[in-house]
Amino acid sequence: MKKVALIMGSDSDLPVVEKAVQVLRQFNVPFEAHVYSAHRTPDACAEFSRTASACGFGVIIAFAGKAAHLAGAIAANTILPVIGVPVKSSNLDGIDALLSTVQMPTGMPVATVAIDGAANAALLSIQILALSEPALAENFAAYRRNATQKVLEKNTQIEKQYNATIQE
Amino acid sequence: MKKVALIMGSDSDLPVVEKAVQVLRQFNVPFEAHVYSAHRTPDACAEFSRTASACGFGVIIAFAGKAAHLAGAIAANTILPVIGVPVKSSNLDGIDALLSTVQMPTGMPVATVAIDGAANAALLSIQILALSEPALAENFAAYRRNATQKVLEKNTQIEKQYNATIQE
Amino acid sequence: MKKVALIMGSDSDLPVVEKAVQVLRQFNVPFEAHVYSAHRTPDACAEFSRTASACGFGVIIAFAGKAAHLAGAIAANTILPVIGVPVKSSNLDGIDALLSTVQMPTGMPVATVAIDGAANAALLSIQILALSEPALAENFAAYRRNATQKVLEKNTQIEKQYNATIQE
Amino acid sequence: MKKVALIMGSDSDLPVVEKAVQVLRQFNVPFEAHVYSAHRTPDACAEFSRTASACGFGVIIAFAGKAAHLAGAIAANTILPVIGVPVKSSNLDGIDALLSTVQMPTGMPVATVAIDGAANAALLSIQILALSEPALAENFAAYRRNATQKVLEKNTQIEKQYNATIQE
Amino acid sequence: MKKVALIMGSDSDLPVVEKAVQVLRQFNVPFEAHVYSAHRTPDACAEFSRTASACGFGVIIAFAGKAAHLAGAIAANTILPVIGVPVKSSNLDGIDALLSTVQMPTGMPVATVAIDGAANAALLSIQILALSEPALAENFAAYRRNATQKVLEKNTQIEKQYNATIQE
Amino acid sequence: MKKVALIMGSDSDLPVVEKAVQVLRQFNVPFEAHVYSAHRTPDACAEFSRTASACGFGVIIAFAGKAAHLAGAIAANTILPVIGVPVKSSNLDGIDALLSTVQMPTGMPVATVAIDGAANAALLSIQILALSEPALAENFAAYRRNATQKVLEKNTQIEKQYNATIQE
Amino acid sequence: MKKVALIMGSDSDLPVVEKAVQVLRQFNVPFEAHVYSAHRTPDACAEFSRTASACGFGVIIAFAGKAAHLAGAIAANTILPVIGVPVKSSNLDGIDALLSTVQMPTGMPVATVAIDGAANAALLSIQILALSEPALAENFAAYRRNATQKVLEKNTQIEKQYNATIQE
Amino acid sequence: MKKVALIMGSDSDLPVVEKAVQVLRQFNVPFEAHVYSAHRTPDACAEFSRTASACGFGVIIAFAGKAAHLAGAIAANTILPVIGVPVKSSNLDGIDALLSTVQMPTGMPVATVAIDGAANAALLSIQILALSEPALAENFAAYRRNATQKVLEKNTQIEKQYNATIQE
Repeated sequence: MKKVALIMGSDSDLPVVEKAVQVLRQFNVPFEAHVYSAHRTPDACAEFSRTASACGFGVIIAFAGKAAHLAGAIAANTILPVIGVPVKSSNLDGIDALLSTVQMPTGMPVATVAIDGAANAALLSIQILALSEPALAENFAAYRRNATQKVLEKNTQIEKQYNATIQE
Repeated sequence: MKKVALIMGSDSDLPVVEKAVQVLRQFNVPFEAHVYSAHRTPDACAEFSRTASACGFGVIIAFAGKAAHLAGAIAANTILPVIGVPVKSSNLDGIDALLSTVQMPTGMPVATVAIDGAANAALLSIQILALSEPALAENFAAYRRNATQKVLEKNTQIEKQYNATIQE
Repeated sequence: MKKVALIMGSDSDLPVVEKAVQVLRQFNVPFEAHVYSAHRTPDACAEFSRTASACGFGVIIAFAGKAAHLAGAIAANTILPVIGVPVKSSNLDGIDALLSTVQMPTGMPVATVAIDGAANAALLSIQILALSEPALAENFAAYRRNATQKVLEKNTQIEKQYNATIQE
Repeated sequence: MKKVALIMGSDSDLPVVEKAVQVLRQFNVPFEAHVYSAHRTPDACAEFSRTASACGFGVIIAFAGKAAHLAGAIAANTILPVIGVPVKSSNLDGIDALLSTVQMPTGMPVATVAIDGAANAALLSIQILALSEPALAENFAAYRRNATQKVLEKNTQIEKQYNATIQE
Repeated sequence: MKKVALIMGSDSDLPVVEKAVQVLRQFNVPFEAHVYSAHRTPDACAEFSRTASACGFGVIIAFAGKAAHLAGAIAANTILPVIGVPVKSSNLDGIDALLSTVQMPTGMPVATVAIDGAANAALLSIQILALSEPALAENFAAYRRNATQKVLEKNTQIEKQYNATIQE
Repeated sequence: MKKVALIMGSDSDLPVVEKAVQVLRQFNVPFEAHVYSAHRTPDACAEFSRTASACGFGVIIAFAGKAAHLAGAIAANTILPVIGVPVKSSNLDGIDALLSTVQMPTGMPVATVAIDGAANAALLSIQILALSEPALAENFAAYRRNATQKVLEKNTQIEKQYNATIQE
Repeated sequence: MKKVALIMGSDSDLPVVEKAVQVLRQFNVPFEAHVYSAHRTPDACAEFSRTASACGFGVIIAFAGKAAHLAGAIAANTILPVIGVPVKSSNLDGIDALLSTVQMPTGMPVATVAIDGAANAALLSIQILALSEPALAENFAAYRRNATQKVLEKNTQIEKQYNATIQE
Repeated sequence: MKKVALIMGSDSDLPVVEKAVQVLRQFNVPFEAHVYSAHRTPDACAEFSRTASACGFGVIIAFAGKAAHLAGAIAANTILPVIGVPVKSSNLDGIDALLSTVQMPTGMPVATVAIDGAANAALLSIQILALSEPALAENFAAYRRNATQKVLEKNTQIEKQYNATIQE
């Protein structure tokens, strides 16, 4: 199976990245985590991106905050799909990272997920890889059925807790 | 090759959708276009989504404006990757559609591109399909080299136009 | 009397929902609470919505955060009035939920109240039901007179506390 | 049948109000239109609101732009449900009117629809009145089925236009 | 001297109002504090506003949060200058109160100060009253000179603390 | 009577300023118009502000766009009340000018009106001057009664146009 | 004298760039204009940036819209000061470009000017170069005196036009 | 070497200013810190700005929050490059200070950095001074190489921590 790359612009993003790690481990999807800054290590970042496809990666997830250029800097050097996770920092509630990630110019898409949406980024990478991995597709479908089941169970709990008091 | 689905919430989104059509035709990627509203035709929308994978689709692109629920409504019923294009409408400059599309809850990612970013949505679908289509990957790489070349040619023009006046 | 449905997208919304529960209990309005996710349990959500009118509901209140599609997903499957409560989550201060709830396309209104405005949603459902329940209308009018009275009492307190110091 | 009141803060809001008029006429719902300003005619506005229920109104729709206080000023003087339509003016794209209408304090809800969402406000008033008017409920259900049908027809057109080129 | 009225929409605004009280006491400006809600006590609010001029008030300061209609509701019933203080509440960082207060329609100005800017509202009321109170004008000028002096003293401290380390 | 000063940061603001001129002329309030830039003519701006009170001015209205510093720069050099009009420029819909004008630090209030709210700024200056000009106060009260009358007349027109069709 | 580099991300930015060209020509500051895209020509962009100092440039001005990464991509490869001009595009009024340009992470500053602020970017580059070019400093000081003079002349015109009508 | 001036509008900005102090000390760049308010000490602020160049300063960094006029007030009185640091205050997350600092009118640029971006402001001042200080330029280049090295080391740590678990 192709690998997923988790690239964070700074190791301060690690708590967010961890949520993606947990999802990928849960699905046994191979991944690597790296710290490459679009600005402080532009060469390493470009080099990684240029060779990512040949190194066996299928999807790259980029995590960055503020004026988040990392996903775009990676996308510029690979034809692999790049997923961008805008990371909330201390000001502006993450809207700066969101706009810097999603408003990419024509020709250079970044598949953007919600602010701090690391788990969703991992799930999206799984959906992409699952297109050519039937077992992974089945696992994802099971994950979805399980999520549905959990909501229905919560519903049962809530119904017991609230509805009896009125319906009697 | 798997097909790309272009689902618009209303036929008033067609001018935006057209930009995706042009990209897909340029790359000879098979696609279908449909009008399904998350709210006015929820059953048809769910039915299409549930059967999309079996019908040979690999990626679904959803176009919607305002409180844009379409991409999420599709994602809820398929395990295929779903790309969301927030469409600008007459108020709020598209920020409503952007936030409604990208801020999806955990478990249900939508790969969001820029407001009105239809061409990028099509390119992203191509990057995803290209993971298992080497010829498409090569075409995309060529498209990128061509885009690079065009910028360099523009640069040559601009350099001629502006720099001579100073450098002589 | 027709019942009010309180539908939350996730049981994490319960602290907000509770404020609506308290109002409905105060007015002895029959209600049910359920957890249905527009994305994780789309079928259960649609099924509930389609049968809500026949099951004796008169108003449905939907609680959801981020890209809040729940109210719209319910509205798509019922002709009952649907009230949407945008729930604030960890980013963007609730503006994402507000725009996702209120900016509904033509044909599918959602009666939106303030961010985290659960009490007001319950009061609005009471105003709607009161149109054909004279006793409830009288209770609501009394609630309003009481609210007026409380402000006037607060005013008396504040006047005593502050105004003497100057006016003597 | 109870009447719907359409109250505009200024006759410059008439083009927006007209879209509600058309919907109400289409459903043969009795209505009255008035111009009352929360600020320039506060007494007339309060007087109308206080007597609206006794005068046979069931729902009041308020249209106002900028610092839109009209819906709140009406709600303060009636127990009828009040629907607020934020009207876009020349600056700020309507976000001022939206926040001024929807962010009502606890105890005084306004059922807010989208910016310039006059048609939806009328439809919401119909949904509310339909709770005790079975014929209106059936008309509204038919309207919905018709809206569904129209989307499906548009879908057929779009499918013919686009999908043949690829699927042959 | 004419009095300043401090009108708060809810006694929960008192911590903000207190900052205005302190300023007015410092300048020995007569004032009264009241709680009047635009929505819960519209009649008392209008009655106060209509009689404020005759009761010896010269300026009215209104404090309100969220969809802050109070300043406008007062302005509608008096020709006295009305100052609006947008009060920050738990969501949206006060931008809702700011826009609801400042974006008043033509004909009904509210002199708006910064979010939670109670001290400045009091100072502005003093500047207005000082136009016909020479002693108050002199006190205000002294306050300004004192403020200037305090900054210059802070400057001296900072200069000692930081500049020696380099300039030696 | 004291004069009103209309200070614009650039003569490109003249179309907005004109709306204030019309109001002041309508009320026969003496005024002067000047162009002083906080940044390009800081000395002239400060000099004017320092001498404004002695020169017979009672209120200063400042008009500026973008990072609108003019009202603050004037306020820093006078104890007269300063009204700020945020002027919309080609980007950001005037929100930059609004925040730059209204969010003044403690000690230096600017009475801010709506974006492009020149007429309201003039009316506010009249309300301030009217505190010590009974004739002006009476004119302003008459203006208000007239505004009320105009709305009531519009209401009569609208009622004729719309309500007959239903009420017959 | 060191040269100024004008780097645009796309030749569609040329109308904005032209305003900088005019300023630089007016001051006889040597400059070069180039088209380098952070994403489509990352290598050429990096190569230019790495050699800019050695090639005689003193300041680099980057023009880009939407998710504007260009200024950051240049800054990553040079120690020259980099000025960023956020360019307004068809959506979001330029706020995306502004935040993408100004919210740079620690260690990699971009000197950001106003949206579409090309003339100011050129003036800032002149202020920087003037630190070691006394003649340029004198020209800039003269430009400023001239700008002051122009405002004063406009003031004279406005004073003649408006003030006579009142002051006679 | 020319000095850097750190001007804060209030000593409450000192915690932010300190981050600039640390950077300047690390590079042995001479600096002075001062407290000058654009509004409370306009004369001292203008006087400092007018004489800054003659006093040996090369760059001025201004720190201010809310309606941040300080950088502009300084720029109006000097031809030195002025760097603006928008300081986050208790409301609006710093967007008011950012827009008040960056949206300067044509003719009066302020080199704006990120909200609370004091370290970057110091680094930008160093980049500017380094244009005529080769030793400082070399120190800055070394700082950049060091920053690159630190990221690469973090990368090595992260790679050890995460990648082994999958790659074995």
